[in-house]
Amino acid sequence: MEVGIIGASGYTGAELMRILAGHPDVDVAYITAHTYAGKCVEDLYPHLQSYAGSKFVEFDLGEALDRAGFHFIALPHGESMRVVPGLLEGGAKVADLSADYRLSSPQAYRDHYALEHTSTHLLQKAVYGLPEIGGESIAAAELVAVAGCYPTAAVLALAPLAYKAYPGVDGAVIDAKSGLSGAGRKLSLATHFAQAEGSVKPYSVGVHRHTPEIEEVLSSLAGEARRVVFAPHLVPMSRGILATCYIRIPPGVAGGEIEELYGDFYAHSPFVVLLGSGDFPETKAVTGSNYCHLGWYLDEDRSVLTVAAAIDNLVKGASGQAVQCMNLMQGFEESTGLEALGVYP
Amino acid sequence: MEVGIIGASGYTGAELMRILAGHPDVDVAYITAHTYAGKCVEDLYPHLQSYAGSKFVEFDLGEALDRAGFHFIALPHGESMRVVPGLLEGGAKVADLSADYRLSSPQAYRDHYALEHTSTHLLQKAVYGLPEIGGESIAAAELVAVAGCYPTAAVLALAPLAYKAYPGVDGAVIDAKSGLSGAGRKLSLATHFAQAEGSVKPYSVGVHRHTPEIEEVLSSLAGEARRVVFAPHLVPMSRGILATCYIRIPPGVAGGEIEELYGDFYAHSPFVVLLGSGDFPETKAVTGSNYCHLGWYLDEDRSVLTVAAAIDNLVKGASGQAVQCMNLMQGFEESTGLEALGVYP
Amino acid sequence: MEVGIIGASGYTGAELMRILAGHPDVDVAYITAHTYAGKCVEDLYPHLQSYAGSKFVEFDLGEALDRAGFHFIALPHGESMRVVPGLLEGGAKVADLSADYRLSSPQAYRDHYALEHTSTHLLQKAVYGLPEIGGESIAAAELVAVAGCYPTAAVLALAPLAYKAYPGVDGAVIDAKSGLSGAGRKLSLATHFAQAEGSVKPYSVGVHRHTPEIEEVLSSLAGEARRVVFAPHLVPMSRGILATCYIRIPPGVAGGEIEELYGDFYAHSPFVVLLGSGDFPETKAVTGSNYCHLGWYLDEDRSVLTVAAAIDNLVKGASGQAVQCMNLMQGFEESTGLEALGVYP
Amino acid sequence: MEVGIIGASGYTGAELMRILAGHPDVDVAYITAHTYAGKCVEDLYPHLQSYAGSKFVEFDLGEALDRAGFHFIALPHGESMRVVPGLLEGGAKVADLSADYRLSSPQAYRDHYALEHTSTHLLQKAVYGLPEIGGESIAAAELVAVAGCYPTAAVLALAPLAYKAYPGVDGAVIDAKSGLSGAGRKLSLATHFAQAEGSVKPYSVGVHRHTPEIEEVLSSLAGEARRVVFAPHLVPMSRGILATCYIRIPPGVAGGEIEELYGDFYAHSPFVVLLGSGDFPETKAVTGSNYCHLGWYLDEDRSVLTVAAAIDNLVKGASGQAVQCMNLMQGFEESTGLEALGVYP
Repeated sequence: MEVGIIGASGYTGAELMRILAGHPDVDVAYITAHTYAGKCVEDLYPHLQSYAGSKFVEFDLGEALDRAGFHFIALPHGESMRVVPGLLEGGAKVADLSADYRLSSPQAYRDHYALEHTSTHLLQKAVYGLPEIGGESIAAAELVAVAGCYPTAAVLALAPLAYKAYPGVDGAVIDAKSGLSGAGRKLSLATHFAQAEGSVKPYSVGVHRHTPEIEEVLSSLAGEARRVVFAPHLVPMSRGILATCYIRIPPGVAGGEIEELYGDFYAHSPFVVLLGSGDFPETKAVTGSNYCHLGWYLDEDRSVLTVAAAIDNLVKGASGQAVQCMNLMQGFEESTGLEALGVYP
Repeated sequence: MEVGIIGASGYTGAELMRILAGHPDVDVAYITAHTYAGKCVEDLYPHLQSYAGSKFVEFDLGEALDRAGFHFIALPHGESMRVVPGLLEGGAKVADLSADYRLSSPQAYRDHYALEHTSTHLLQKAVYGLPEIGGESIAAAELVAVAGCYPTAAVLALAPLAYKAYPGVDGAVIDAKSGLSGAGRKLSLATHFAQAEGSVKPYSVGVHRHTPEIEEVLSSLAGEARRVVFAPHLVPMSRGILATCYIRIPPGVAGGEIEELYGDFYAHSPFVVLLGSGDFPETKAVTGSNYCHLGWYLDEDRSVLTVAAAIDNLVKGASGQAVQCMNLMQGFEESTGLEALGVYP
Repeated sequence: MEVGIIGASGYTGAELMRILAGHPDVDVAYITAHTYAGKCVEDLYPHLQSYAGSKFVEFDLGEALDRAGFHFIALPHGESMRVVPGLLEGGAKVADLSADYRLSSPQAYRDHYALEHTSTHLLQKAVYGLPEIGGESIAAAELVAVAGCYPTAAVLALAPLAYKAYPGVDGAVIDAKSGLSGAGRKLSLATHFAQAEGSVKPYSVGVHRHTPEIEEVLSSLAGEARRVVFAPHLVPMSRGILATCYIRIPPGVAGGEIEELYGDFYAHSPFVVLLGSGDFPETKAVTGSNYCHLGWYLDEDRSVLTVAAAIDNLVKGASGQAVQCMNLMQGFEESTGLEALGVYP
Repeated sequence: MEVGIIGASGYTGAELMRILAGHPDVDVAYITAHTYAGKCVEDLYPHLQSYAGSKFVEFDLGEALDRAGFHFIALPHGESMRVVPGLLEGGAKVADLSADYRLSSPQAYRDHYALEHTSTHLLQKAVYGLPEIGGESIAAAELVAVAGCYPTAAVLALAPLAYKAYPGVDGAVIDAKSGLSGAGRKLSLATHFAQAEGSVKPYSVGVHRHTPEIEEVLSSLAGEARRVVFAPHLVPMSRGILATCYIRIPPGVAGGEIEELYGDFYAHSPFVVLLGSGDFPETKAVTGSNYCHLGWYLDEDRSVLTVAAAIDNLVKGASGQAVQCMNLMQGFEESTGLEALGVYP
C-alpha cells in the first residue's frame, strides 16, 4: 500500500518514516514539508539513510490523492484541518497526529486551541486513535485522530479504573514527566540543552491543552464526567513520558482486584505490558518501541492507588500509535511493523 | 572555630568540605573515613583542591574532641548513633546528617529502619534541622538532626498550609523527582549511567523511609495527624530535587490568600524564594546553592493547589542545610558561607 | 536456524537478544548466564518483552551443542577461550564477541591481557570479524573473533588509507569518545551517573587494550607495520562511539582523491554511510542501528586529514556486527535483521 | 569599585553577575542588554536571586562612564568594537570577552570574522587576557581581550612546550570537546536538547575561528610560527571543555622532563592544577570553578605526548578569567572572588 506523510519534517514525521521503513506492507509514496520543500531527507535526518535522496515536496491535494490512498498528517494543530477534508472527500483514509479532531465539540476546540474549527462536520466522524480503548471503531474509521502523547500515557494508566467507574478517577492527580522531543523540533530556550540538562521543571500546570482531551476520554469510558489534575514536567531526556497517577480508592479494595482489573482490560492489547504491583516502569525500557509499561502500588492505609505508565512519546505517544491505527484501519495485523523492542540501555 | 567531618568520603561529606572551604568562621580540623582512611582527599574528589594533601583518618572519639568543638556526621543511618552520644558527652555540638535522630520515637525508628535505636535518650533532645520551621530551637540545640533531602523539599512546599491547619495537607500527594547523587556514592545498577540516562522511574512508592519523617513534621506543624502519599522518582540529572505537591483546597480559597500565606510564613527565610503563582521552579536554578525555589498554581475549578519546591539535594537537602544549622547553633549569621548563587545554566 | 547466546546477561548479550528478536531466519534456543542462572530475562531487561518468561541457564557444552548449531559468546575475555574449543570440536560455528581470538599471537595476548592463552591453536583459525574488511574470510570461517568497539570505529575510519598504504596512518592519532555502556554492566565509580554526567574524561591513554588490535588490523591492511596513538574518552551518553582520526597526508593529495578512495573502498558495504567532505557524523544518528557514518576534512594547508567515524558501540561495535558476521557465515543476506534505522532524536 | 557589564543577558554576562556577586571589592553598578532592556534579571536567570529586581538597561556611553570605572564587555564580536573605544577614551578600563581585540592584525580579523575592524589602533594596545602566560602585561593594561574558551584550554595545555620551543607544537593536534553552553544562549538545532543529548559530533573542523587565536598565542610563546590542527566537538553536557592535545616529542625526552617543565611554568599560577603523568582531568571537577586541571601521558615508544586540559568554559574559559584579569588590572589579589571549588558530583 502506498502512503503519504504530510508535514514530514518534524519529529513525528521523521519518526513515521523511521517506523514505516520497516513495515512490510507499506511504501512511503510522498513526503511533504513547507519550509524544507526541495531538501533531501538525510540533510535533516541523518539516521534516515534508507530514504537518502528522497526530497520533501510541497503539499498538493491532487498529487497526494494520486500517489497514495492513506495519509498521515504530522502538521501542527490548525494546519491539519486545512488538508484533512480534501483528502477524505477524495476517498482517502487519514490518520491525523495533530489535535484538530481529538475533541468532540467545536466549543472545546475554540476554548483550548484559541481557533475556530473549520471542519466541524468531521468532528463526529473522527474516531479517537487509542487502539487499546477503541480498536473496533478505529478499524471502521476513515479519519482517526491519533491520541496525544500525554493522553496516551495517562489514559492507559487510568482506563481500567475509569471503565469500571471507580469514582476516584474524578479528581485523580496525573503528574507527567516528558522528554524534550515532546516539545517538537521548533526552537525555544526551554529546549536549549544548556538550560534543560540537569533540570526538571513543571510547566503549563492546570492549563495544558491535553487536560480536556484526557478528561473527555475518561468521561466517555466512565459514562459520567471525570475531571483530573494534570501537571506536565520537562525532564532531561530526549524521549519518553512517565505518567504517575494517584487515585483515591474506596476502602476495602485489595491489590488482587486491581491486578484482575488491569489484566482483564488489557488481555488483548499486545503493546501493554503489566509489570504488576510494586514494580514500576522506567521510560528507557520502551525507548524506540511501541510498548506501554504499567506498574502500580496500592497504599491500603491511605486508600490511594498509584499507577505509572511509561511510553516513548514519539512512538506509542505519536507515530507508532498512528501506524497501529493504520494497521487496524487497513486490516493488517495490529502489530505489523511495530515489533521492535526498546533500545536499552 | 574548628569543626570535624565524620564520614567525609561520601557525597554529603565531600559537599560539606566544598561549602566549608568558603566559610569565613570555620576551619575543618579533621575528616574521617573508614574505607578510605589514609587516602588523600583529591584522590577521591579532584574538585577539592584546597584540601589537596589532607588525608582521611579513622574516627577516634578522643582525637575528635581534642581537635574540634563542632562535628558534622555524614555517616549512614545506624552508624551515626554509635558516635553521637560520645561526642555530646564530651561537650561537643553535633549536626547529624543521618536519619538516626530525625524520628521522635524509637518505635518509628525500628519500624522504618529495621534497627533498634541505641541512644533513645537523645531522641527528645535532638532538634529537627530545618531552619525555616524551627530556627529558634536549632539555635539552642546541642544535637541537630538535619532534615532529609526529600523532607526538606516536601515540607518547605507544604509547611505554610500545614501550619495554617489546611485539612487538605492530610492526603496530599507528593510526587518527588531526584537526581542520582541522592542515591549516594555506593554503586548499584540503578545509578549506572547507561541505565539511568534517558530514563525516569518511580521507586519505593509507598514504602520510602522519608514518608514518616515528612508526616511527623507536618503533623507537628498542624497540631494534628497528617498523612501523605509520597512517591519518589529518579530523574537523569546529578543533583536536584523537585517536589510537586497536590493539596485539596476548600472551595472559596483564592490565589491571594495562598500568596499571603507563603509570603508571611517565609518572610524571614533568606533561602526561600517565592516565584509566585503560575511560575514554577526548575532544579537547575538552585544547583550548587542553598536556595529553595517555590512556585504554585491554584486550580479553583478543581479545588486543588499544586505547589512545587526545587532544591539542590546535596546543599539545601543535606550539607548546606547542616551548615545553616551550625550557623544558628554557633550564633553566626544564618547565611554565612552559604551565599553562593546557583550554577546555571 | 537455532542459535545460542553464552553470557547473555551483560549488555552485549542483551543486545544480541534484542537484535535477534527481529531476525527472520534465527531462533534463540538458549541463553546462559552464571550469576543470573534461573532468573527471567525481563527481570534484568524490561525491554526484552518478547523473551518474557525465558530463563538464563548455566552453560553446559552438551546441552548447547544439542540445542543450537551457532553460538554467540558474550563472555568476558579469558572466559571465552574456556568454551570456544569445545563448541568448535562439537561441530558448531561460533561468533565470539570477547577479545580472546582477536590478536594473532599468544605473546600479544599475554602482553595485553595478562593471561596465558589456553587455545593458541585456534588463533590462526579465527577470522577477525569486521565484515567491511574481511567479508569473504568471514563467510568461510567457523570461528569469528568479532572486532572490538573502538577498533571497529577506528579501523573503518582508517582502512581505506591503510589499504592504500598511506604512510601517515603510521603515527595517526585516534581520539575516541565512547558512551558509558561501553564499560559494560559491571559497576564502578566511573559509570556512576552522578560522576559521569556532565563530564568528559580521557582514560587508559597509551595503555588501552584496543591499541594492539587496531595496530594489527591496520598493519595487515597496509602490508607493513602501522602504529597509532589511541586515546579513549568517556562521554556522558549511554551509547555511541565517535572516533576522530588525524592522519598526515602527503602534500599534493586533494580532496577528490580522498572521496574516491573511500567511495571505492566501501562501494559494497551496506552499513557504511559516507557523509563526504566537511560533513561530520553525530553518534545519535546511528543509535540502535548497525550503521557506521563517516565524514572527513582535508586541511591542505596543514597536510592533515581528519576522519571521524560514528557507530553504536553495542550494535556495529558488538552485537550487530556479530549478527552481520553470522549472516555471512550462514549464507544469509548480509543485512538480514539489521535494517533498523537509528533512533533519532 | 563600581563595575558595569555590557551585554549582560547572554551566558557570559550572567556568569559575570554570578561570580561578581561573591567578589568582596566590587559592586555591579549597571547591566546592559538590548533585547531585554527593561526586563528584570530574575526573569531570565532565576539563579541570580541576589540581583532580583535589577533591570537590564540600554547601553549609553555617558551613563556607563558615570556609573563605573571598569567595564566588562560580553557582546558578540563586531559589537564590542563599537563600544570599547568610547569607554577607553572616557578613561575607563575594559575587559572585553568578545573576539574583537584578540588577534593582533586587522587582516587576520577580516579573514576570520568577515568584518572590517573599526578600531585597529587599539589592536596593539590590547593585551591578551590569559593571566597564566601574560600576567604582568595584563596588570598594566587598560584594555584586555579575554582569551577565548577553546584557546584557554588549548594554550594552557601547550604553553610550557611552546615556550620551551618544542618543535612538535607545530602540527600538534588539538581535539577539543565542549559542553553546549559554549554555543551561547541563541537558539539552533545543534543546541536543541533532543538532538544534542546522547550525541557527540565534530564541527567547524579546520575552519573554527579559534584556530588563528591559538596559533598566534603559541607562536608568540615559541618565538616562531606554530600551526595546529584544531577540531572542536560538541558533547552532551552544559559546561566544560576538555582539550586533548597530541604533540610529537623528540626521542629521548623522558617523563621527568615534562613534569619539571609544567611544574616550573605553572609554579605561580593558583588556578592551574597539575594532576601529573597518567592522571587525566575530568571536566566535572572544575564545573563552576576557575580552575584548569592538566594531566598527561608520554608515550615514549611512539614519541607522542598527550596532554589534556579541563576547564569550565563559562568560568576559566570566559567570565572567571575576565574577573581574574580585572583583579590583576586593579591590583587586587589574583584569586579574589574566584576561590569557589568545583560543584561535584
